Amino acid sequence: MRAVDLIQKKRDGIPLSSMEITNFLTMYLDGKVPDYQMSAFMMAVYFNGMTDEELFAFTENMMNSGDTIPLGDSKHFMIDKHSTGGVGDKITIALAPLLACFDIGTAKLSGKGLGHTGGTIDKLESIPGFSFPETQADLMQLIEKTGIGIMGYSDSIVPLDKQLYSLRDVTATVPSIPLIASSIMSKKLAIGADGIILDIKVGHGAFMKTEEEAKTLAATMMRIGKHFKRNITAVLSGMEQPLGFSVGNSLEIVEAIETLKGFGPTDFKELLLLIAGNALMMKGIADNLPEAISMVSEKIATDEPLNNLKSFIQACGGNPNIVDDYKLLPIAQNTRSLHSVNSGYVHEILAEDIGKAAMILGAGRATKDDQIDHGVGVVLRKKVGDHVNENELLATFYFNDDKQLKEAEKLVLNAYRIQQNETGAPSTIKDIIYE
Amino acid sequence: MRAVDLIQKKRDGIPLSSMEITNFLTMYLDGKVPDYQMSAFMMAVYFNGMTDEELFAFTENMMNSGDTIPLGDSKHFMIDKHSTGGVGDKITIALAPLLACFDIGTAKLSGKGLGHTGGTIDKLESIPGFSFPETQADLMQLIEKTGIGIMGYSDSIVPLDKQLYSLRDVTATVPSIPLIASSIMSKKLAIGADGIILDIKVGHGAFMKTEEEAKTLAATMMRIGKHFKRNITAVLSGMEQPLGFSVGNSLEIVEAIETLKGFGPTDFKELLLLIAGNALMMKGIADNLPEAISMVSEKIATDEPLNNLKSFIQACGGNPNIVDDYKLLPIAQNTRSLHSVNSGYVHEILAEDIGKAAMILGAGRATKDDQIDHGVGVVLRKKVGDHVNENELLATFYFNDDKQLKEAEKLVLNAYRIQQNETGAPSTIKDIIYE
Repeated sequence: MRAVDLIQKKRDGIPLSSMEITNFLTMYLDGKVPDYQMSAFMMAVYFNGMTDEELFAFTENMMNSGDTIPLGDSKHFMIDKHSTGGVGDKITIALAPLLACFDIGTAKLSGKGLGHTGGTIDKLESIPGFSFPETQADLMQLIEKTGIGIMGYSDSIVPLDKQLYSLRDVTATVPSIPLIASSIMSKKLAIGADGIILDIKVGHGAFMKTEEEAKTLAATMMRIGKHFKRNITAVLSGMEQPLGFSVGNSLEIVEAIETLKGFGPTDFKELLLLIAGNALMMKGIADNLPEAISMVSEKIATDEPLNNLKSFIQACGGNPNIVDDYKLLPIAQNTRSLHSVNSGYVHEILAEDIGKAAMILGAGRATKDDQIDHGVGVVLRKKVGDHVNENELLATFYFNDDKQLKEAEKLVLNAYRIQQNETGAPSTIKDIIYE
Repeated sequence: MRAVDLIQKKRDGIPLSSMEITNFLTMYLDGKVPDYQMSAFMMAVYFNGMTDEELFAFTENMMNSGDTIPLGDSKHFMIDKHSTGGVGDKITIALAPLLACFDIGTAKLSGKGLGHTGGTIDKLESIPGFSFPETQADLMQLIEKTGIGIMGYSDSIVPLDKQLYSLRDVTATVPSIPLIASSIMSKKLAIGADGIILDIKVGHGAFMKTEEEAKTLAATMMRIGKHFKRNITAVLSGMEQPLGFSVGNSLEIVEAIETLKGFGPTDFKELLLLIAGNALMMKGIADNLPEAISMVSEKIATDEPLNNLKSFIQACGGNPNIVDDYKLLPIAQNTRSLHSVNSGYVHEILAEDIGKAAMILGAGRATKDDQIDHGVGVVLRKKVGDHVNENELLATFYFNDDKQLKEAEKLVLNAYRIQQNETGAPSTIKDIIYE
């Protein structure tokens, strides 16, 4: 069957067989289906979606387009935690050393941040001397040694996804649930963790703007996971505001460590405990979620997680003393305070705009080739539900170059939606979905 | 605005401005929008259609992508007749010499046939010695001399259409009403005729399968014509069966001439008179359509149209004696009769399959580079509404190579839908649409 006939079927809502999807993607990888046919196909998928048979075949072909990592060989029970990307999301940095206390390994191939959301890779690279494993062998060794395996995505894992994502990015076919789900899940499947925990962000600062969309995406990814016989749980968490107070690489490292020390923001801690608790459930070392969460919670009061973090940093060539002395991190020395122009209750903090403010100060990349300044960012002083007086402190900027400061101030001031009527803090956790 | 943002707008059903359409197409022509963005855009158009503002801007940019032909300079009142393509459609060959009797010039840039429908160019090229004008100057001279201006599409007229059509052909974006309408109308607008008559075919053998689709296409093209201040009429004609009896190049030339001699098939003659009548109305030399049709009808009884055809053939280097002696045409000497296997009334003759049968005998092209055999084809002996007995003659094949004959016989036998209950002949004319 010719490629154009397969596009036509998809256009007309006629289900393709696994074999047809496989042929189409194989021809694409062989250069026999050009980009202009693939982009037309993906636009038809945008409008008509995918059947489960199509979705599973699409994901499997993506997965098999490159190397796989045999994490099943590890002595640890391995968890792969994935977030769809939020502002201020430093979960992995606190989660991995916490899970290591329960002999649960964390496997995470992470991307560099782009746009208003930061990347775990960028955050950890603010630690002086820190560098990631570069080969799979180094990654496996790091996991055996510390129980923590974080590295950047290599081009050899699911190369087809990289190719398709570049094309989707310029053809307005990114926001398609089956394409998003197969893109994420193919990478999870290529890494053979024992359990997958998805953190699906929903709200202004997230890719999924509504709970309905987020639930559809979650259900789609769960179906893929189940089809490929993976242990999988999805958490829906809110992005009505950034997660925690700090947005910016070094600043987020500090917040993650503070949380492991028993301090840290309520919303961040709540999500951290929930995800960690679910990992314990997956390993089968707790009978129910409340018990799992209290087991994790008790660990936070001990030195164990901090010691695990130090070992991990040291194994990656970084300076472990940053855990005790934040001055060793490259935090920007110039600060500027932003004050409220009116009084009332904070109803919303538009997370995307906070992310953009941090980005233009240098914390993130507008384009792939931009250089990052690890020291800059924004620390929020008020969160949703808080009362604020006129002239009271709203946020603090950390900056090295004041060129974009005015613009960042404007963004943050505008991101704070303050109203007269009282409002409670929003629930960070919207839903938990099990198989 | 970036190309991807324009694709996204189209995808989300947000109207684009004329300026945005112009920018998008200009960037495409300049090579700044690659094919993969254009194909995604056209797939979004397939799903979301176009507003009139988009449609008019799209058509205008197509028209202006190449040369235009200043037919307005001709001393004749010029008509441009366009058919959306049917099986057995030899209207132009009889129409042009007929209209020349009323000092109405016919301008027609015609394509070569592809697939199951033949092209006017191919039909006329069966005449020994015949060759078309190759330059615009030659075309204008031919029109001044004979009142008939037929030539092949040159690459310099609406080159953007050629480019987009090639892309649509391989990305399953051909059957989109606004894309079809702008493709046809941009070429009509590039040729400055005084009046445009559209013959929109509807039914099995046509591009438009239902009357509803055909009416939408007609209405869309009429809106474009009106916007650009053109005199335009559309006729919807049926393709429940081929037009006339003959399908194949030389065979259709004979049928067109027979019709000008006062013989010829009823359905073909009916459509010919209607289109010619409307041309007289456009020129303003008849008060109403019945009067116009009877004026045309009277001309058919005279030698005038035949003499006009002879002059035209002669001016193009062809042998005018073919009009009186069909043996001068390269009609295939081998014939085979096809007989009915049952008796009853003919309810339908699947036109597409008749076209395919003629094509595989060599009358048409499966791909652009195929060579044509001008002598072969199919002559139907029964039409819809006719009674047929078992073993009675259904059709005659004219062939030079019997390799595909079995397959052609199977197609034609299967194309005849014979039932027991009586049925009338279908109406050839479904609708006439004026501004």
